[in-house]
Amino acid sequence: MRVYLAKNLREANKNSAADNRKILGEHGVLMVNMMGSPGCGKTSLLEETLKRLSPKYRLAVIEGDLYTAEDAQRLKPWTSEIVQINTEGACHLEANYIGHLLTQNSPSLLDAEILFIENIGNLVCPAEFDLGEDIRVTLLSVTEGNDKPRKYPLAFKETGAILITKLDLLDYVNFNLERATLDLKIINERSVIFPLSAKTGEGVETWCNWLESLLKKKRK
Amino acid sequence: MRVYLAKNLREANKNSAADNRKILGEHGVLMVNMMGSPGCGKTSLLEETLKRLSPKYRLAVIEGDLYTAEDAQRLKPWTSEIVQINTEGACHLEANYIGHLLTQNSPSLLDAEILFIENIGNLVCPAEFDLGEDIRVTLLSVTEGNDKPRKYPLAFKETGAILITKLDLLDYVNFNLERATLDLKIINERSVIFPLSAKTGEGVETWCNWLESLLKKKRK
Repeated sequence: MRVYLAKNLREANKNSAADNRKILGEHGVLMVNMMGSPGCGKTSLLEETLKRLSPKYRLAVIEGDLYTAEDAQRLKPWTSEIVQINTEGACHLEANYIGHLLTQNSPSLLDAEILFIENIGNLVCPAEFDLGEDIRVTLLSVTEGNDKPRKYPLAFKETGAILITKLDLLDYVNFNLERATLDLKIINERSVIFPLSAKTGEGVETWCNWLESLLKKKRK
Repeated sequence: MRVYLAKNLREANKNSAADNRKILGEHGVLMVNMMGSPGCGKTSLLEETLKRLSPKYRLAVIEGDLYTAEDAQRLKPWTSEIVQINTEGACHLEANYIGHLLTQNSPSLLDAEILFIENIGNLVCPAEFDLGEDIRVTLLSVTEGNDKPRKYPLAFKETGAILITKLDLLDYVNFNLERATLDLKIINERSVIFPLSAKTGEGVETWCNWLESLLKKKRK
């Protein structure tokens, strides 16, 4: 009984994700699903990313949080197309939340060229839910330690890009960048890896260029 | 239908937690449930805690991880009573896992005076599951940012102690200790708050003394 229900829920999410993918494809919107632990630097990186890309592209953001709209507030200087989802306790976003926004609540999100989703800060549950994104991005801050990819493999396995964040703190913590990169390559050989720091800006340009190349590929 | 099932599951967990609490009470074991984000420093603090308390008390640990037994390995120098739970993807521990260990798989855990549980690294889901602990402890590292208590309130609301960890990194990050403490007091006025650093040892003694006082209270 329990398994049956779980399967149904997962099946429903898969269908919603496929619907989202279709509608985003029709509108030529690149959707980027960003996930990582609480405090790994998702919002800070988004600030730096929007700052660099907003002069060139129409950008939109769906902000996922359990409570508060603080992150959405931080991103407002860079785009007016921001929608906050408050899950009120739920630990991940699901495809039907996104579908509801795209088709009913906020269809203007489809005018964007790149739509960023900041998922709930959680290295476990969001990884199990396809939202219909073009690309999934997982953040790992150097302060979390380089054992995390081995301990939370799904988030790193099923992702297209891994961002090693807070590089500015590398000298103060026990994080082996080389070892982490090797571990990540074993868990996920297809993913690109970008070490960067939103604070100093190191590596942010490379990440932004990569997003631009994805958008160009999609629009071909 | 969905709600019905969810309620049943939560009810079952509540009953298991009550069973655990009863058996722990009969054996005079103080159970401490430690939770926090991935990389917030749970294992590092446990190392320092076991190091200080193991000469005086019989200690045991239940290590919760999705995968690997790396954390359990790190704690082995300080106690032989360590059981690893690998949830293989599940995002939190439930009371019946602990009950199974206490009554069937590893009853020698009940010989301990303090039994630590290191929950899955996740600031969301573990907070919803009472394990039958005497005290719940939530860790928040200064690298995560001081907006986290407002954004993940349940983990900070339903806890008896809040440990602000990685104090050694305070100078390098944008974390306002005073603001965080005020926020925490609003969310949870009953909880004690211990700022500390497992790396430098600052504040660890105070935390250990507090655990000792809880044990003494329980054994009275």
